[in-house]
Amino acid sequence: MIATVRKRKTGKAGETSSTVPVISLLTDFGISDYFVGAVKGVILSINPDAQLVDITHEIPPHDIAAAAFTLLAAYQSFPPNTIHLAIVDPGVGSNRRPVIAKTRAGTFVGPDNGIFSYVLEQAADYDLFHITDQQYFRASVSNSFHGRDIFAPVAAALSRGARPKAFGPKIVDPVVLPSLKPLRKKNGLEGRIIHIDTFGNCITNFTKADMLENPRLLVKGKRINTFKQYFSEQTGSRAELFGIWGSAGFLEIAATNKSAARLLRAKRGDAAKLVKSREHDNKS
Amino acid sequence: MIATVRKRKTGKAGETSSTVPVISLLTDFGISDYFVGAVKGVILSINPDAQLVDITHEIPPHDIAAAAFTLLAAYQSFPPNTIHLAIVDPGVGSNRRPVIAKTRAGTFVGPDNGIFSYVLEQAADYDLFHITDQQYFRASVSNSFHGRDIFAPVAAALSRGARPKAFGPKIVDPVVLPSLKPLRKKNGLEGRIIHIDTFGNCITNFTKADMLENPRLLVKGKRINTFKQYFSEQTGSRAELFGIWGSAGFLEIAATNKSAARLLRAKRGDAAKLVKSREHDNKS
Amino acid sequence: MIATVRKRKTGKAGETSSTVPVISLLTDFGISDYFVGAVKGVILSINPDAQLVDITHEIPPHDIAAAAFTLLAAYQSFPPNTIHLAIVDPGVGSNRRPVIAKTRAGTFVGPDNGIFSYVLEQAADYDLFHITDQQYFRASVSNSFHGRDIFAPVAAALSRGARPKAFGPKIVDPVVLPSLKPLRKKNGLEGRIIHIDTFGNCITNFTKADMLENPRLLVKGKRINTFKQYFSEQTGSRAELFGIWGSAGFLEIAATNKSAARLLRAKRGDAAKLVKSREHDNKS
Repeated sequence: MIATVRKRKTGKAGETSSTVPVISLLTDFGISDYFVGAVKGVILSINPDAQLVDITHEIPPHDIAAAAFTLLAAYQSFPPNTIHLAIVDPGVGSNRRPVIAKTRAGTFVGPDNGIFSYVLEQAADYDLFHITDQQYFRASVSNSFHGRDIFAPVAAALSRGARPKAFGPKIVDPVVLPSLKPLRKKNGLEGRIIHIDTFGNCITNFTKADMLENPRLLVKGKRINTFKQYFSEQTGSRAELFGIWGSAGFLEIAATNKSAARLLRAKRGDAAKLVKSREHDNKS
Repeated sequence: MIATVRKRKTGKAGETSSTVPVISLLTDFGISDYFVGAVKGVILSINPDAQLVDITHEIPPHDIAAAAFTLLAAYQSFPPNTIHLAIVDPGVGSNRRPVIAKTRAGTFVGPDNGIFSYVLEQAADYDLFHITDQQYFRASVSNSFHGRDIFAPVAAALSRGARPKAFGPKIVDPVVLPSLKPLRKKNGLEGRIIHIDTFGNCITNFTKADMLENPRLLVKGKRINTFKQYFSEQTGSRAELFGIWGSAGFLEIAATNKSAARLLRAKRGDAAKLVKSREHDNKS
Repeated sequence: MIATVRKRKTGKAGETSSTVPVISLLTDFGISDYFVGAVKGVILSINPDAQLVDITHEIPPHDIAAAAFTLLAAYQSFPPNTIHLAIVDPGVGSNRRPVIAKTRAGTFVGPDNGIFSYVLEQAADYDLFHITDQQYFRASVSNSFHGRDIFAPVAAALSRGARPKAFGPKIVDPVVLPSLKPLRKKNGLEGRIIHIDTFGNCITNFTKADMLENPRLLVKGKRINTFKQYFSEQTGSRAELFGIWGSAGFLEIAATNKSAARLLRAKRGDAAKLVKSREHDNKS
């Protein structure tokens, strides 16, 4: 009985025992058309109890890497039994494979085009399935809207307990994006900007495990040696640009009340280097 | 017990037996003000178990035809017991009628201004009720926000089992928009552009039932005789513009990685003609 | 059993007896990043039964007063046991206090920076608690995303029945914004524009209790003496600007099919005066 769950006295972070199926949605559909509504309607036609959560529908159209990053940054906050529906699908209707990826930290449904690349790189291990069993599809499948006609009903079926292997054969060769791991060089680490967020913060692929003593970031011809603990921190430095640990677990380049991306004229994919500061003088 | 529903093994598309009430929302309220939150708060004050789903709140302000199309394209994906709350209401506070339209495929709540026009044209039959019983309204009804003060509590009451006829008298004269049916002429079909989506695709009112052999589309002085199965299909044609069956069931005019609406300088309401290709030569 | 709740015959406005916990969200996170999804994922990890409702995520970045107004306008439509999570938090990571405010009409969770100011001014009485007990926080707390790491798990714990006083000591000195009450002067009331909505309507801090006979509004050097009952009302007046009672309970300045804010070059904080009309002639 639902009341039992609710009346538990404990409310400490991390605990959960209910089995309400959460389905997250991440797409490039935008929010002004009927697309998102149709996907949700199909899910609820199959599982009216699903707990639907939008991650975002504002991924730039067809931008698979932006979707891969956003999914990576979001999924770890969800219950591990969550089904993540991720649809940025420029190849819809072609022969790209619809897939289910099952990891310990979540189950993922979408096209096999690299959108799950970062999640699968981070997962210790995973099983991947090619969705082929049409009994799970909508009665009539369009060539332009597999989000509604294939992915939504598959996610809904999963949320009602269907096993990933029921949908089709196991596969081992997912499409992947370039790795998130920086390259270790003698004088430091070579990485890149993997995402630029809405505030213009530039997210690099350096993690705490990569961090050096007295670090310095080199990006777009600039040296950054101010590192802040939090955004409104007063450091005494007059530098506009600073490094900060972002909430997704990566080192970010930010600017006080400004877009770091604009200041740097940076775009995703631009090189970033993390070096020890003694290799350079301290004027910057 | 909720767990019973959730633990069903079957997860095939189309099946459902739970009675969780879904309420969809479609408005021109935008998403930056408190309007949508207030509507949902009122619904949940009456029915905390309602499953609320946004179709969109980004209908252009007061654009009843855009709302009518978006609702038409979305509602068929929802469970038939869904209550669709659709509020684009330039006449709020005047004497336009608040109505409930009950069809086999959904129940609709909103102003009688044409917003349900396309849905009712498609429905085999329906019952329409004028909402007059103020006991279902909010205690204090404003003149500017019937979404919160009338439509939300009515939808919530419906979701708790109230019958449409409980809210007021049956009526038979809804406000209607021009029909979605193209006109049959000797040399083909005369239709129009009924919607332009966020990608600039121009949705016509031609359906598969209207389709001709060797079809050609005439629109804004251009002939379109390339028809694709899916967006990324390579057809060999060098034409920028092509026809494609859209996911809402209508023939759409699209352009490869471009806005067809911009290329055509098309706007909603512009004429479109569907003819057999032998009436014209094949140069285009 | 959920079905019991759903099958109640009554559906009249205002009634509710279920205890489904509603959690509303109001932030400046925008909707294109992973931020909102992460907050919701954390909440559902702790309470999968929570009914999550977005008020808005489009508060202008760091605009605490806009958040305070939007929350004031929305919260009264929600069930009184709702937990309102409001996060506009320029001081995140600094020593500003995370707080819980408990009123009869809602429980509020967020930073102590004035965001709850208008709600608390309106509440008859309230209890305020400084959130200090880290057992309710996420295992690892970042310096830039307390929405996910502190406020979300606290709101989730509250929704599972934890008492506000369990989270930390009672405090009595919240940060407050300037009062919403206009000043009474001999010749009328001195108020201000407290919000400008997406349509350009200027919301003043005058309420019905402040209303005078034959009122006139003075704002930005203009006199407004046309008052409408509803937006599409024909008054015979040729004045572009008019007063109207807004749905948030305040007197608004609007313009027919135009932005009143643009016509007036008004911004939030601008003075507005409400006087009796006999003090001025009727030409305007």
